[in-house]
Amino acid sequence: MNASNGTSLTQMANAIRALSMDAVQAAKSGHPGMPMGMADVATVLWSKHLKFDPAAPAWADRDRFVLSAGHGSMLLYSLLHLTGFEDMTMDELRQFRQLGALTAGHPEHGHTPGVEATTGPLGQGISMSVGMALAERMLNARFGDDLVDHRTWVIAGDGDLQEGISQEAIAMAGHLKLNRLVVLWDDNEIQIDGPTSLTESTDTLKRFEASGWATSRIDGHDVDAIDAALEKAKTSDRPVLIACRTTIGYGAPTKAGTAGCHGAPLGDEEIAGARKALGWEHAPFEIPADIYEAWSEAGSASEHEAWCLRLADSDKSDALVAQLSGEPGEEELKALSDWRMQVAAEKPDLASRASSGKTLAAIVDAWPSLVGGSADLTGSNLTKTPGANAVTSSNYDAPYMHFGVREHGMAACANGMSVHGGFRAHVATFLVFADYCRGAMRLSALMEQPIVYVYTHDSIGLGEDGPTHQPVETLASLRAMPNTHVFRPADALETAEAWDLALQRLDGPSVLALSRQKLPFLRKDDGFENLSARGAYTLIDTEGKPDVVIIATGSEVALAAEASELLAGEGITARVVSAPCLDIFAEQDVAYRDQVLVPGVPRIGVEAAIRFGWDAYLGIDSGFVGMTGFGASAPAEDLYAHFGITTDAIVELARALK
Amino acid sequence: MNASNGTSLTQMANAIRALSMDAVQAAKSGHPGMPMGMADVATVLWSKHLKFDPAAPAWADRDRFVLSAGHGSMLLYSLLHLTGFEDMTMDELRQFRQLGALTAGHPEHGHTPGVEATTGPLGQGISMSVGMALAERMLNARFGDDLVDHRTWVIAGDGDLQEGISQEAIAMAGHLKLNRLVVLWDDNEIQIDGPTSLTESTDTLKRFEASGWATSRIDGHDVDAIDAALEKAKTSDRPVLIACRTTIGYGAPTKAGTAGCHGAPLGDEEIAGARKALGWEHAPFEIPADIYEAWSEAGSASEHEAWCLRLADSDKSDALVAQLSGEPGEEELKALSDWRMQVAAEKPDLASRASSGKTLAAIVDAWPSLVGGSADLTGSNLTKTPGANAVTSSNYDAPYMHFGVREHGMAACANGMSVHGGFRAHVATFLVFADYCRGAMRLSALMEQPIVYVYTHDSIGLGEDGPTHQPVETLASLRAMPNTHVFRPADALETAEAWDLALQRLDGPSVLALSRQKLPFLRKDDGFENLSARGAYTLIDTEGKPDVVIIATGSEVALAAEASELLAGEGITARVVSAPCLDIFAEQDVAYRDQVLVPGVPRIGVEAAIRFGWDAYLGIDSGFVGMTGFGASAPAEDLYAHFGITTDAIVELARALK
Repeated sequence: MNASNGTSLTQMANAIRALSMDAVQAAKSGHPGMPMGMADVATVLWSKHLKFDPAAPAWADRDRFVLSAGHGSMLLYSLLHLTGFEDMTMDELRQFRQLGALTAGHPEHGHTPGVEATTGPLGQGISMSVGMALAERMLNARFGDDLVDHRTWVIAGDGDLQEGISQEAIAMAGHLKLNRLVVLWDDNEIQIDGPTSLTESTDTLKRFEASGWATSRIDGHDVDAIDAALEKAKTSDRPVLIACRTTIGYGAPTKAGTAGCHGAPLGDEEIAGARKALGWEHAPFEIPADIYEAWSEAGSASEHEAWCLRLADSDKSDALVAQLSGEPGEEELKALSDWRMQVAAEKPDLASRASSGKTLAAIVDAWPSLVGGSADLTGSNLTKTPGANAVTSSNYDAPYMHFGVREHGMAACANGMSVHGGFRAHVATFLVFADYCRGAMRLSALMEQPIVYVYTHDSIGLGEDGPTHQPVETLASLRAMPNTHVFRPADALETAEAWDLALQRLDGPSVLALSRQKLPFLRKDDGFENLSARGAYTLIDTEGKPDVVIIATGSEVALAAEASELLAGEGITARVVSAPCLDIFAEQDVAYRDQVLVPGVPRIGVEAAIRFGWDAYLGIDSGFVGMTGFGASAPAEDLYAHFGITTDAIVELARALK
Repeated sequence: MNASNGTSLTQMANAIRALSMDAVQAAKSGHPGMPMGMADVATVLWSKHLKFDPAAPAWADRDRFVLSAGHGSMLLYSLLHLTGFEDMTMDELRQFRQLGALTAGHPEHGHTPGVEATTGPLGQGISMSVGMALAERMLNARFGDDLVDHRTWVIAGDGDLQEGISQEAIAMAGHLKLNRLVVLWDDNEIQIDGPTSLTESTDTLKRFEASGWATSRIDGHDVDAIDAALEKAKTSDRPVLIACRTTIGYGAPTKAGTAGCHGAPLGDEEIAGARKALGWEHAPFEIPADIYEAWSEAGSASEHEAWCLRLADSDKSDALVAQLSGEPGEEELKALSDWRMQVAAEKPDLASRASSGKTLAAIVDAWPSLVGGSADLTGSNLTKTPGANAVTSSNYDAPYMHFGVREHGMAACANGMSVHGGFRAHVATFLVFADYCRGAMRLSALMEQPIVYVYTHDSIGLGEDGPTHQPVETLASLRAMPNTHVFRPADALETAEAWDLALQRLDGPSVLALSRQKLPFLRKDDGFENLSARGAYTLIDTEGKPDVVIIATGSEVALAAEASELLAGEGITARVVSAPCLDIFAEQDVAYRDQVLVPGVPRIGVEAAIRFGWDAYLGIDSGFVGMTGFGASAPAEDLYAHFGITTDAIVELARALK
């Protein structure tokens, strides 16, 4: 198979191989084996099938290409260079893995145009791709084939498929019949530790078939076979797995087919041998004109142009563009602020999970891009709004998703939907199971995606389910995550404010930690100003300088308020600071933080969780009322008493510290 | 099928149903549906097949029973009561889910005799069971059929099988042909959100078969069919899945077969209807004598007795007992202390991952119970000792495991081996992928199991792999976990000390965060005393009260030491405190902590990670040299300079603070 100038696809693939081995060698670090092994598959895909326009990496109706095996990043960077992505110059390839280069060790979405998802942590790419393929079908259901009609192609390695998250993704894709998803498995029988036979006896095709995928098996170096398999995949009514039998490090004379070429430079001698074996005579980082010419045929600029014309003609154009922008419009923002003021007026006593559900119900009609789902805790998480349907394989036009008990896959799916564009995703489970989501949550933060994680049952306040279900360290572990805003609202108004801030945020994820149990309404203001926007604020003030400042979050703010009242009876003035988001509070200027915390005044932190991380606000000699270890199984009120998280405990501590 | 007094197994099962619905009703909280659905399967298993002795819950050669669907805890508590586990009195059942009762909401290992593993977080039980079944075969390979010959039986629900970790476990069990493992799948077609058809299209039997399991399908209410399937399972040469089609809440007149009976009390009326439907006329918490009598036949006291006699006769008796104890003996301890002193004498400059590997190599012969493995990073984690073989399906007598890229399953497997007894397990991957292990790590901590997590590549010091692979928040997130000791050793001697402490620990997990890059040897002492044992200590002291105290961990201690020298040249005295384990340091008395940290003297923390959690040691007005967000892809030295984690930065901060 040749390009129209007669250049064979194999030679086009060899350009990838050469760039990959040379860049890794120059960096003295990287993974040459995978790009060299999958070069033929990638060449056929990108030159004959992938719908993209190098001049417009953000074209909404492009096919998505996900390099789930992200360590093979030079495959992707080579493709971006050869197909003419402007930013991916030869200099960038020479600077592979150097500070500031677009050619980071693993592909980073947002850092490098053309990189659809940050990959490297295995299993994440293939799982995000499910979210992309789902987003495509959901947008298609709303906007039709003329405007939304593209595929998601994935290259995945053995490691991707061994990660448990991949099973969650495979099951979801099969269940939802996401036939626009094609996974190209680099079936090279080699892992870091050696042959896959060391650890793997699974019949992978059978495993995918069990979940409703179409499968096939090809020689991953036979360009005609690859072409035929990709062509066939485009007609499937189910997601497609193509097992591509390849030789890792294809072309390397002694290291091909071994773990030795997986994750280290080949060395000068081996590279020279590979050049010879591949018939590639060009110097490092030199691509001859005929190869560039052959590669210039790749891409779909004319399809892009036609799409732009269709978009311009469509009466759905404005709606699609608005939805793709990800930014809330006036109507969305108004719905949020109207609701805040309504809550401030109504002052309901509600579990914050219930307040969250009511917030969603109030704004959902004004937020067409908002979609959400739960990992089989719909009735507990309360994020399914009245009348909302769930997506099924026969109806993608719905705002809700039943994910099954697949927390990690759910979070990755949300990431995929978000980087795809068109949807603002919220996903839900119990707070303690954030642990299961963490691999994907880290990518939300790193890719700066505004996912909203709705985590209910946020403390020992969940009661009888016991320590396996009671987060005590989870808030700390999430606050530690860079670029993640963890909210723990104290009442119905703070819950509405948290949603407001999470949805207005565009550059990173938010966590809403919500109570199972009912919380009293605490706020006295009209709700016009979002007081949570600075992370913490004075909820109850005293006249003059307080004797003590009590800083609390969520369900414990009510305890702090009670304590403040009791203390007042004893002549001790206690300011109560509500801190719905310590991450945001930490970003405030010193003047504001000092205004709230009053330097020199003793402080008491109150949270039904461990102290870890609180000392940044308390200082070493201050007090804390909370947990010191895991919880226990009992009714919530018994647990609060048992663990000493009580008004009395706050009062006592205040007496001692004042 | 009847007990010898003529009581039908179905009536024996109805005792479980009655106790479960009554206890949940009394608690006003809990999950009646699963125990009522799986009562028949459990009755046949416990009365006819399970090898156990209620009088000796810790008998080493007992079969293990794991209730992976831990929310159905009343099933297990009912069985423990009916079969005569002494502690599980009727009063305990009446106290279901109350403070201090043995009948916690979810089964808790260590809290309740007869509970083999803490379950509730879905997927963990089935995954731990793989570790149990593997430990059995590994012990069997060493000690023979006379002493080690038992099975692991698991009840798993739909949620367990949807969790990705289950796929990792299934693949491992199939690969290793763990034929002593039998999973009884509660195939009731119901989840919390509704019918499984909402989220599930996977052919589960095919999925298991793809990974080499034997499978069958039975009516889970047909006691003869159950009995035949269990009997057949005992002859399998592969792990066995039995799909038990059951009706959730079997017997409940209107709620059976619906999600409504999954996680809430049935209510008085429904319970009365169930009593009628089941022909169960007895009052709540009343079991008639004939039912107790029928249940009294369950168990294998005589087999236990025979085993004790064989053990007494065996020349391997002492070795087995020692290995099962889990406690290091004199030889083990001597190997550790000898090695510490050897390292102190040799003073090698080594990456701490390399020091860790050498420590293991030095002690492995003296530690027969020590086994370890890696999630496909053997050559990076360096925990495979020279000459060590890996376990395979044809040879279980080996101390190493290739887990594949299955971090979560690996950690759960280690938990399973540990609660099984006989092995001290260490497992390894990159530190950043602790996120993938976290669900299982939390259970290590909660179950107080002394797993050693060897996490290498512990900072931006790993260099070019970039932010996806560079932990910055991971240390904080792990330090936040209760009952977990996180070590970050600064040199070869601290690494040996960390291993020493981790292996001497019996009541919780340890994390060893180890560098990819070489670290200079820093210690001047003879190694006789384990200085890491108090968590932090003065490495470099000054004459008189220091001007500043620099507290550092791991690779940054060398920077602190250099800074201290530079500062001395300027007349600024800087004490250097090395803090290999802040968790242990936090447990020290105030006198020791003050002795090390010198209250009133400004402090600087240094760690190539975020500050989160450090303020407990620093105080609000002190300094920190570290990261403020995610890392980047570049050579390590460039990154340290880029992010300002340098000797100069420490010196400057010291000048400003002193």
